[in-house]
Amino acid sequence: MASTFGEIFRIHTFGESHGGGVGVVIDGCPSRIAVSEAQIQVELDRRRPGQSEIVTPRNEADRAEILSGMHDGLTLGTPITILVRNTDQRPAAYDEMAASYRPSHADFTYDAKFGIRAASGGGRASARETIGRVAAAAVARQVLDVFHPGIEVVAWVKSIQHLEASVDPATVTAEAVESNIVRTGDAAMVEPMIALIKAVRADGNSVGGVIECVIRGCPAGLGEPIFDKLEADLAKAMLSLPATKGFEIGSGFAGTQLTGREHNDAFRMQDGRVRTTTNHSGGIQGGISNGENIFFRVAFKPTATIMSSQQTVTADGQNTELLGRGRHDACVLPRAVPIVEAMATLVLTDHLLRQRSRVGG
Amino acid sequence: MASTFGEIFRIHTFGESHGGGVGVVIDGCPSRIAVSEAQIQVELDRRRPGQSEIVTPRNEADRAEILSGMHDGLTLGTPITILVRNTDQRPAAYDEMAASYRPSHADFTYDAKFGIRAASGGGRASARETIGRVAAAAVARQVLDVFHPGIEVVAWVKSIQHLEASVDPATVTAEAVESNIVRTGDAAMVEPMIALIKAVRADGNSVGGVIECVIRGCPAGLGEPIFDKLEADLAKAMLSLPATKGFEIGSGFAGTQLTGREHNDAFRMQDGRVRTTTNHSGGIQGGISNGENIFFRVAFKPTATIMSSQQTVTADGQNTELLGRGRHDACVLPRAVPIVEAMATLVLTDHLLRQRSRVGG
Amino acid sequence: MASTFGEIFRIHTFGESHGGGVGVVIDGCPSRIAVSEAQIQVELDRRRPGQSEIVTPRNEADRAEILSGMHDGLTLGTPITILVRNTDQRPAAYDEMAASYRPSHADFTYDAKFGIRAASGGGRASARETIGRVAAAAVARQVLDVFHPGIEVVAWVKSIQHLEASVDPATVTAEAVESNIVRTGDAAMVEPMIALIKAVRADGNSVGGVIECVIRGCPAGLGEPIFDKLEADLAKAMLSLPATKGFEIGSGFAGTQLTGREHNDAFRMQDGRVRTTTNHSGGIQGGISNGENIFFRVAFKPTATIMSSQQTVTADGQNTELLGRGRHDACVLPRAVPIVEAMATLVLTDHLLRQRSRVGG
Amino acid sequence: MASTFGEIFRIHTFGESHGGGVGVVIDGCPSRIAVSEAQIQVELDRRRPGQSEIVTPRNEADRAEILSGMHDGLTLGTPITILVRNTDQRPAAYDEMAASYRPSHADFTYDAKFGIRAASGGGRASARETIGRVAAAAVARQVLDVFHPGIEVVAWVKSIQHLEASVDPATVTAEAVESNIVRTGDAAMVEPMIALIKAVRADGNSVGGVIECVIRGCPAGLGEPIFDKLEADLAKAMLSLPATKGFEIGSGFAGTQLTGREHNDAFRMQDGRVRTTTNHSGGIQGGISNGENIFFRVAFKPTATIMSSQQTVTADGQNTELLGRGRHDACVLPRAVPIVEAMATLVLTDHLLRQRSRVGG
Repeated sequence: MASTFGEIFRIHTFGESHGGGVGVVIDGCPSRIAVSEAQIQVELDRRRPGQSEIVTPRNEADRAEILSGMHDGLTLGTPITILVRNTDQRPAAYDEMAASYRPSHADFTYDAKFGIRAASGGGRASARETIGRVAAAAVARQVLDVFHPGIEVVAWVKSIQHLEASVDPATVTAEAVESNIVRTGDAAMVEPMIALIKAVRADGNSVGGVIECVIRGCPAGLGEPIFDKLEADLAKAMLSLPATKGFEIGSGFAGTQLTGREHNDAFRMQDGRVRTTTNHSGGIQGGISNGENIFFRVAFKPTATIMSSQQTVTADGQNTELLGRGRHDACVLPRAVPIVEAMATLVLTDHLLRQRSRVGG
Repeated sequence: MASTFGEIFRIHTFGESHGGGVGVVIDGCPSRIAVSEAQIQVELDRRRPGQSEIVTPRNEADRAEILSGMHDGLTLGTPITILVRNTDQRPAAYDEMAASYRPSHADFTYDAKFGIRAASGGGRASARETIGRVAAAAVARQVLDVFHPGIEVVAWVKSIQHLEASVDPATVTAEAVESNIVRTGDAAMVEPMIALIKAVRADGNSVGGVIECVIRGCPAGLGEPIFDKLEADLAKAMLSLPATKGFEIGSGFAGTQLTGREHNDAFRMQDGRVRTTTNHSGGIQGGISNGENIFFRVAFKPTATIMSSQQTVTADGQNTELLGRGRHDACVLPRAVPIVEAMATLVLTDHLLRQRSRVGG
Repeated sequence: MASTFGEIFRIHTFGESHGGGVGVVIDGCPSRIAVSEAQIQVELDRRRPGQSEIVTPRNEADRAEILSGMHDGLTLGTPITILVRNTDQRPAAYDEMAASYRPSHADFTYDAKFGIRAASGGGRASARETIGRVAAAAVARQVLDVFHPGIEVVAWVKSIQHLEASVDPATVTAEAVESNIVRTGDAAMVEPMIALIKAVRADGNSVGGVIECVIRGCPAGLGEPIFDKLEADLAKAMLSLPATKGFEIGSGFAGTQLTGREHNDAFRMQDGRVRTTTNHSGGIQGGISNGENIFFRVAFKPTATIMSSQQTVTADGQNTELLGRGRHDACVLPRAVPIVEAMATLVLTDHLLRQRSRVGG
Repeated sequence: MASTFGEIFRIHTFGESHGGGVGVVIDGCPSRIAVSEAQIQVELDRRRPGQSEIVTPRNEADRAEILSGMHDGLTLGTPITILVRNTDQRPAAYDEMAASYRPSHADFTYDAKFGIRAASGGGRASARETIGRVAAAAVARQVLDVFHPGIEVVAWVKSIQHLEASVDPATVTAEAVESNIVRTGDAAMVEPMIALIKAVRADGNSVGGVIECVIRGCPAGLGEPIFDKLEADLAKAMLSLPATKGFEIGSGFAGTQLTGREHNDAFRMQDGRVRTTTNHSGGIQGGISNGENIFFRVAFKPTATIMSSQQTVTADGQNTELLGRGRHDACVLPRAVPIVEAMATLVLTDHLLRQRSRVGG
């Protein structure tokens, strides 16, 4: 359903940007997994606004409260509910936007679908909804560590507009990415990217880019053959994030320029294991992981809410102009990095538990 | 679950390439919809092998039999089962491939996941599995025509390797696409593309490319805000197809080169309706259709099974070489066009029924 | 999944008896439905402890807070989260019970399943979990009133141990039931039932009984033919309530004493509508409502936690004796009446929305 | 959804009584389980018509064909499709019944729901639909035998109208039940029950009764705490069978006559295991199995289609009389015994796989 993701490790997010709060209920988490609010908080802090000079100044601590499903630091096997209260709400900033539809935002389509919307703060279309995903993934991360230690999920900013980073998915570290506020893995691109974001913001404009993500240490055999292929669930996970416009895995669109002879990944035995000599497949074949690195890229469009005057219409059907207000990122990518990791972690955890249910005798 | 797609108009495909047959059970189809075996057959014929000189010569008539859910040409509201028997089976062609894993195919990963596989004909990883999808979509097409007449779904070959067609999503017709065996919408590219496929095949090689698809006449309001965004479900649908490596909607990856000011689609009133002056959004905003054309592109890698010798390993862990045999497309794109349309039709129909369940009063 | 109920109007309950709180996330609720916290509170007050002299003295106000999904008193179409904080927690009362398994309670089986349990307050096995169901049903009730006005759901205590009330499902009113603290519909049985409960409680013992429920004004056509028959979903809903041991609809077990000629409900036209002259079917035929009154009965066993010494074992496998402590109902039936109504309302609402999704053209 | 049952071991049944056939698709079955058509056939033969002098003479061999999901006698982990063709169709027998609604049958409600029905043979409301369930359960049985050997599921006719058998759930054997055509476990009741069925049939009438079922050897820990309690899923499974009106587990409705002190099952250590000294709980506490025998009873109403004239209405709203025709059981219970076992087996298998997915580290 609309706000549910996953088959066994199943999450339900809830909440609008303004209002009582946002959060998540996690159903299907195995019991006796150690999880702390502190671990969840670390991930929430990575996505929260106000964390650096290049992200939105909306300043919310985003404190997670675990309402249920835990006992003495261990999961109970029952639904885990995590709530983050909304605190820094400025509904006045949205008065004008309640009357007019922001171009390329979800204002108009929510009205078309529901006949009503929570204009203040963007309601459920706000990126605050992803808090629940990130919190749930912090729990999922602990499940992975217990059930299959050694799986790494690392994402980074691959490009911002025309600036492209050079990063090796096989070796990039989370520490390298986290060491700079733009969250790219290429030290040489940090300053140019920061400068671009600042310049665009100063101009009342916005930019997008591409995030790349690698999963290392994934066992072979995850993913389901037909509709729930591992790459299909990753694609859905990524396209379910706000502002995303594209997904590609392994060789992606560029792979269409190769012939089969060039593109095929030869198998070779190595250390007693079946390995491939190249990895155009991106670690997945026939929807199922083959034990190589899984890597994919996600396209994020430029932020829709800009501080410039734009043509639009009012909710009652009059042409008008709208100047964006509120506190918005001129570039969402730095804050989107932990969210991409979160969605990848959720997909992996769910497929790991699905596979466990069927492995025999 | 693995072989189930959709929430309300829900399909379950079944069947291996060799064996009793392949097919689909459709659950949740509204009653009293007129559907004929002939309509289903038209679509199956568009995807079947042996239809032209550039596709696999495997020659199966792929005759659909409706086993249940129909009465006097009308749907009963009960599960509709459609079965296509396998006929032209040549298991001997797969003997060698049973022993060795085809590079970049699903042979190894099926074994890694299940500890067993139906090597003959590729089993369930064969593109024959898509017969059930195409048959189901032919039924879904009739539901759309009754519940919301005027929705068009048209796909075409946008590129094959380096050859790119010039096609306008706003005006391309199904007839234009269907008039050439490569199924592109650009008459000037038909012969070059055919020539490329033939040359590659003659070389024992293969090529991939990009299919583009447009949905015209879709009402505003379809798609769910969070995980089941319309573009997320389209992405999953497309990445669930064999050989796909990427998906992009609207401006896609190229849109990351634009600024927000350039990318935003201004709203204007036109004929009493809210319209956009550009369509970088690709007809979907915040996961919900806005009434403009929905268009997206899907990357298909070159066919994995090629008639060339390749390095690989045997099922019991020995390095070896394998020369592909069997009857395979050197380029899957012409036959994938109706399959892309089928998946888009299934997503639309499901979301249309989901929306109907909730519209009030 | 475990804590999810419903296909379209789908609820997810969460929370342990002691801890941050209990509640529910409702997904799939139509938009623009007027719902007030006051309406929810009315239903929560009907099930809350401490409401009369014959129920548990645990005294919690059970104040509902709507965290999400509402705007200016109307549903947004997004997930509605309702939270009730736990306040009157006395974990000390559970120390001994943490060490020993209460007979016929869920203590042992939770440990067997999860390897851990929240002993304090009974954790998730506490009847406090039903708060989320009752709150969700209060929302569902408003959906029914908008989408199909005139549906009544009324339950009452049919029997307590050997005391059986005489109540006519066709005419009993919610007011009559609510006018007495035991919630039976037979004025003559009120005092005897109250006296029985008090006597049993004074003896450190407990009693069970039967709740009957009628749904009046249900349209014909709700329910799905095979697994999701309306009576099957009602049976599951009722058996999912704590302490229930049986369910019967219409003629139920007694109907097995009749012959087909006696049991069949003859059809007759009446006021232009197809009606039945008797109603052994209980308003459902072939899993689908026929427009007659739907009525069913639910058996509740005597409360497991009693204030008497009982033989049991400790969590580490020693035979022992346990004297129940804590604040428990000697008879759960008066408080279970609104919960039975809640589950029936949830089943109806879900099936009403399911039917809307498929009704044609 | 309507024709889907189970969360992990998930079955989809399809098919009308007359038409191409009936069957099932099983998704989520573990791979490498040995299953033979012969094993499936044994179970189908137990439920098929024409097997003895007291059941319907409709004479169909009900030959199962496995269309997919198997290879060399082993499951592939892909969907298993089993088809049984319809052969002995006599649509003429239904001409009159197409025009008039059979009392207490699903004729009227299907029309009310779908606006159309397959009158011939009863369509999907025919008990032939249960063929798919029985075939699927024959596969599930093999999964249980591999994953948790030693689980027994035995059902028997407990009563027919006023005739009640005396059977001990702890010791009754499948052989004893199968040794008589009425499928009761009490030798003394065989002849009286057969005589009653024959007498009722000779009179153009019908009778119902109660089937009891025991599950022995079930491990502790199966079942989910809240909505998917093991008894709730069993209740739904049983009430989803045609002609059922009631379900009770353990002490059931009779248990409401006991006090808590009498009803509670004391725990004692026995052979190093936690056991109960009585079993009013019926092997399930808090929705989760406790390792004791699980036993329950299901009420079946008398067959609706009787060979007597009854008052009814026509499909176009005229009062009329209808004399039943066709070949119907005067008492469905003997043939329902394997179906009750099938549904219990499906519930167990699904919960066993669900539990496996979450057991840690």
